[in-house]
Amino acid sequence: MGPLILSLGDPAGVGPELILAAWRQRGTGTDTGTGGLPFAVAGGASVLEQAAAGGVPVAAIASLAEAAAVFDHALPVLALPDEPPAGWTPGAPCAAGARLALASLQAGAQLAIAGKAAALVTGPIAKSHLARVGFAFPGQTECVADACGVAAQDAVMMLAGPSLRTVPITVHVALSAVPGLLSAALIERRAAIVAEALTRDFGIARPRLAICGLNPHAGEDGRMGDEESRLIAPAIAALQARGLAATGPHPADALFAPRHRASFDVALCMYHDQALIPLKTLDFDRGVNVTLGLPIIRTSPDHGTAFAIAGKGLADAGATIAAIAMAADCARRRAAAR
Amino acid sequence: MGPLILSLGDPAGVGPELILAAWRQRGTGTDTGTGGLPFAVAGGASVLEQAAAGGVPVAAIASLAEAAAVFDHALPVLALPDEPPAGWTPGAPCAAGARLALASLQAGAQLAIAGKAAALVTGPIAKSHLARVGFAFPGQTECVADACGVAAQDAVMMLAGPSLRTVPITVHVALSAVPGLLSAALIERRAAIVAEALTRDFGIARPRLAICGLNPHAGEDGRMGDEESRLIAPAIAALQARGLAATGPHPADALFAPRHRASFDVALCMYHDQALIPLKTLDFDRGVNVTLGLPIIRTSPDHGTAFAIAGKGLADAGATIAAIAMAADCARRRAAAR
Repeated sequence: MGPLILSLGDPAGVGPELILAAWRQRGTGTDTGTGGLPFAVAGGASVLEQAAAGGVPVAAIASLAEAAAVFDHALPVLALPDEPPAGWTPGAPCAAGARLALASLQAGAQLAIAGKAAALVTGPIAKSHLARVGFAFPGQTECVADACGVAAQDAVMMLAGPSLRTVPITVHVALSAVPGLLSAALIERRAAIVAEALTRDFGIARPRLAICGLNPHAGEDGRMGDEESRLIAPAIAALQARGLAATGPHPADALFAPRHRASFDVALCMYHDQALIPLKTLDFDRGVNVTLGLPIIRTSPDHGTAFAIAGKGLADAGATIAAIAMAADCARRRAAAR
Repeated sequence: MGPLILSLGDPAGVGPELILAAWRQRGTGTDTGTGGLPFAVAGGASVLEQAAAGGVPVAAIASLAEAAAVFDHALPVLALPDEPPAGWTPGAPCAAGARLALASLQAGAQLAIAGKAAALVTGPIAKSHLARVGFAFPGQTECVADACGVAAQDAVMMLAGPSLRTVPITVHVALSAVPGLLSAALIERRAAIVAEALTRDFGIARPRLAICGLNPHAGEDGRMGDEESRLIAPAIAALQARGLAATGPHPADALFAPRHRASFDVALCMYHDQALIPLKTLDFDRGVNVTLGLPIIRTSPDHGTAFAIAGKGLADAGATIAAIAMAADCARRRAAAR
């Protein structure tokens, strides 16, 4: 099994310092460390050296096969062919940095797709800055899905923290568009992708899927909206007919209370905030964004570039460490199954 | 100052046993007890005696003025004129029970309005059962508002727990109806009612109001919905022009994370689940429903009748105790201000 590959993220954001912090906490514990697999960074050696300022040794490597040997004593950084030159400019995003972030992401994805890296962990980028240097995707997830040859709609975002896993069925759309975008087929397809991934990558033999309602009190028998009976209940029935352990539609407000969280492995939510509010309320600094439905394993810390605090030593590395540890866990499960 | 008055709730639900549990934990601590004020129940002596089965002494009183003298050694229950006869039928709601629940609610509200009770704490009812005996309101809040002569739209529901206070601007409506129901005027009016109540009843001199966006990431500069710029930001500007400490529109997913919760006194949310998910995720068994904008103080445990577990000793009295303690706190503040 190869090492994990990390993309740098925008050099002006918190990505570089979080990678350094994660390397410092490298270790075998998945609760406290990075999960026991070596990792390397795709490009950005000079950025990382400047950000480290001697505090973390950075070792340039020419092939991922070298990563394991150097990982214990230095952070391995793979030189990229035609690597765009860029310096460490915390808080000041620029075109050169965006080019490096994009090159790092693309190289990381290719290394995972080629099987040279066991999994891809992406650092935070700013979409608007990358768009100016030719990035044509709404986000990294769609870019990675495209590189994998998977339709964007079949790349499913799951948020996972120590307390909870949630999946938004619709994601970055206006709330008013949500009811029109939902369909029984969409819910069924995404839920099935989630169930398969939880079994393969998370070791849950028969994942329990809690499907939320869209409306308050899950519509209260149709008194407040009919999407539950018209779309969500039929999707649940179809999932059950496939033999999946799907329940609902559940009133979303009560589902995330402590006593109810133990009753499911993942909550399928109808819109962004229904999934993200409970996750961030409980696990703000440990939230991992996992892309399900891809041939590769891809995780990411669930936060942005945080330009405002970049380079100040204020960023919490918890989510990055959790993303690396989760990728290592999933990679080991896939390797064991082969 | 008079005692607090408690309405019984549906005799077939968990209301009676929760009142008994609260009396057992009567005490001065607002964290652990009922807040140090005596309370009495509006009607239902025979229901409470049966539910208590000798475990709690129940004392019939003819006037609220008697409550304080008996409260230490018995639960005072005020006999109602023309009290509908009903027995304790846990788990089996019936018309007689619904009539008693309604009489208790109406009597309790009148005692608070007349100033004989310092505050009203309502027990859980089942709207569908009360509707069959003539209850013409969507819920208790509207019934109490009507008794107070306040338009239902000016009675604002706030959910309060140990971790958080939230207010849903729209409440029991289909999610698809939410964008059409929101207006700058509605947000401004409800927020102003909330601010005034937090000062008067909760002792917060300059309440910090965090106003949520409607869309993911609060619309991300209009990329996902325009309600933030069209409705919410103008409402915030109007509130600020009144001198209120209103901020936003905030992305709702991050607002309830531990580090952000300390930055506001109440979150104004655009719809039911945006307000209720974080509250129930954090404070499920301690959630209090407070009605703001009324001339009287009214609180309620934020849960239903729970017919399925009524009479089995399984119901958690935390929310009832918290509702009583909060009513006592608010009543003391109003009394001190007079």
